[in-house]
Amino acid sequence: MAILERNDTGAVAHLHMNAPERLNALSDDMIAALQDQFDALKQDQSIRAVILSGAGKAFCAGHDLKEMTAGRQAEDGGKTYFKDLFDRCAHMMLTIQSLPQPVIARVHGIATAAGCQLVASCDMAVAAQGTRFGVNGVNIGLFCSTPMVALTRNIARKHAFEMLSTGDFIEADRARDLGLINRAVAPEDLERETADLAAKLAGKLGAAVRIGKRAFYDQIQMPISDAYAYAGEVMVENMLYRDTEEGISAFLGKRPPDWAQ
Amino acid sequence: MAILERNDTGAVAHLHMNAPERLNALSDDMIAALQDQFDALKQDQSIRAVILSGAGKAFCAGHDLKEMTAGRQAEDGGKTYFKDLFDRCAHMMLTIQSLPQPVIARVHGIATAAGCQLVASCDMAVAAQGTRFGVNGVNIGLFCSTPMVALTRNIARKHAFEMLSTGDFIEADRARDLGLINRAVAPEDLERETADLAAKLAGKLGAAVRIGKRAFYDQIQMPISDAYAYAGEVMVENMLYRDTEEGISAFLGKRPPDWAQ
Amino acid sequence: MAILERNDTGAVAHLHMNAPERLNALSDDMIAALQDQFDALKQDQSIRAVILSGAGKAFCAGHDLKEMTAGRQAEDGGKTYFKDLFDRCAHMMLTIQSLPQPVIARVHGIATAAGCQLVASCDMAVAAQGTRFGVNGVNIGLFCSTPMVALTRNIARKHAFEMLSTGDFIEADRARDLGLINRAVAPEDLERETADLAAKLAGKLGAAVRIGKRAFYDQIQMPISDAYAYAGEVMVENMLYRDTEEGISAFLGKRPPDWAQ
Repeated sequence: MAILERNDTGAVAHLHMNAPERLNALSDDMIAALQDQFDALKQDQSIRAVILSGAGKAFCAGHDLKEMTAGRQAEDGGKTYFKDLFDRCAHMMLTIQSLPQPVIARVHGIATAAGCQLVASCDMAVAAQGTRFGVNGVNIGLFCSTPMVALTRNIARKHAFEMLSTGDFIEADRARDLGLINRAVAPEDLERETADLAAKLAGKLGAAVRIGKRAFYDQIQMPISDAYAYAGEVMVENMLYRDTEEGISAFLGKRPPDWAQ
Repeated sequence: MAILERNDTGAVAHLHMNAPERLNALSDDMIAALQDQFDALKQDQSIRAVILSGAGKAFCAGHDLKEMTAGRQAEDGGKTYFKDLFDRCAHMMLTIQSLPQPVIARVHGIATAAGCQLVASCDMAVAAQGTRFGVNGVNIGLFCSTPMVALTRNIARKHAFEMLSTGDFIEADRARDLGLINRAVAPEDLERETADLAAKLAGKLGAAVRIGKRAFYDQIQMPISDAYAYAGEVMVENMLYRDTEEGISAFLGKRPPDWAQ
Repeated sequence: MAILERNDTGAVAHLHMNAPERLNALSDDMIAALQDQFDALKQDQSIRAVILSGAGKAFCAGHDLKEMTAGRQAEDGGKTYFKDLFDRCAHMMLTIQSLPQPVIARVHGIATAAGCQLVASCDMAVAAQGTRFGVNGVNIGLFCSTPMVALTRNIARKHAFEMLSTGDFIEADRARDLGLINRAVAPEDLERETADLAAKLAGKLGAAVRIGKRAFYDQIQMPISDAYAYAGEVMVENMLYRDTEEGISAFLGKRPPDWAQ
């Protein structure tokens, strides 16, 4: 059984973390498996949406504390290992944003520490009601500083500070109100709702979503006038796609588009 | 009948987009007319608040797709025209922010694509319940990259990504909860509520609002220590206005201010 | 009676603004007293959380307008004094963020202008239901430009613009929904709820909270890839604390940590 399973349904790739006995912890192996799959997806134009989920009781409980503790045995007390670990983990999180396809987290059970970061790093997230989210490393003396990077880019400052400094959990409805996830649904609807959302995204023109997603994360960090200059160029490029010309013609002609994608 | 009507009531200018048969699309003419009026307002110290609304069934349905399609006939397939169009449109949107007066969008029916961007670009927005907002270009293969610039500076990241990638509409109550608009009101109250809000703004000291609005958008893009250095200078300048001295004296004396404005 | 009282309970310092007859205005004396206490707290590793509250009917009503008006008597009309005043005030606000301990505003009555900025500048805030928040300087001709710096880093753009340009107040429940405060509680629960929250924070590993809080405000201003590079180093440093090693061991061993702090 692979630590990360991949099943494709049409243009939707489904990545399923499969280490339930470790609550799908982001061990060295899990990070590497996610990175490998994301790298493969980057090149794969047949896939137009990605779902990320976890097997067992939890979506993901964060880093693998046993493995990290074992890392302390090195001569430098683990310093080199930890630096490399956080670098690999951050690289994997950033790869999600740099993928051409939207990535939807399908979340249940718990999403804590780097597991909560994983939710925050996906483009969208759907969670089962009752799911608990937390950046609770502070409870064991390890402030969730890297999860914080993704969290503070999702939710308002005071709420983020509260979660990080108290270690308290929030439930799915609250996570949705704060902006950490898009939807909180009944547990029995989680699979279907997420699949429907992914199918909807996969039905869009892949090239348009690709250029738009890249622009989304690039422009958000720019001063507004630079953002407009950049987004204007993206719009021009998008307008010149043959499929976009067809999409607009079809809309004006009140017929479905005949896309080559 | 002008494509953009202007009616002033006291210190409130009311711009009314008047191309209902095209759902007030941001055609070349409409963009030019808006730019002209905003440029005129920039110099007009007698106006202290602006309302922007649309005639007919919609506030604004975005770019004029027929005109854009016609632009493809050029030798370069429209590339030069599109670049110029998005530049002019972005410049007009940024002019709203650089106006000395607050601009309130009065929104009804639909506000889609660049029409939604127009709402996001105004300083405030009041909408009738039932109004639908969307950045739905993705449905025809044209990701709303320029509307995204304004949208992502109004609402949280995951909600913005969802709207942009699904093309789904949201209603006014949801738009208010997300921060895209300030108020969702009963349709029959839309005119009055917007007029009351504009009148309230017009009753403030124009010079204070002017310096404050400019500082609002400037400081928001700065590191916080730079923002304080800049805002501190703005406060000093504001304190030295004769009308501000009178405003503070009047407050301390528990009487209404006698402003020269 | 000091203008600012300090009482410590265990690892929690409680600063109580005590100029009720002036609604705890941020006079020269009050700013200086706050700065002194914050500077002292910066060095004090025995304190792990701070509560800031006000005596009398209001948390804080902003700058001291009588004192500011007196400042106009100087030869330069107050220019030098105002510049210095806003510099001192901004420095005090920024000191709250640079403190190693989390600072919780305990808010009741009113928090207006620079008083509202004080709430926005604290890491967290708990308010009694019925508390009114406003950045209402515009009503007397003085746009709240420096409070705006903190406010716009707490709540969404359109809501911030509305508060600043209308001068309207919002109540505690609304302030919580917008993200300006963390919790709105019944007035009779305010003391206990705030004390409980502070005690919870004080029970965490101080070194972890200290490094995490610093990273919180530093990384939030960086491009995301820089933020990850920085936060990764913070995590490594945090992992190498002896108390963090103990915290993780205790967690894995299902026992309480034996921290030296």
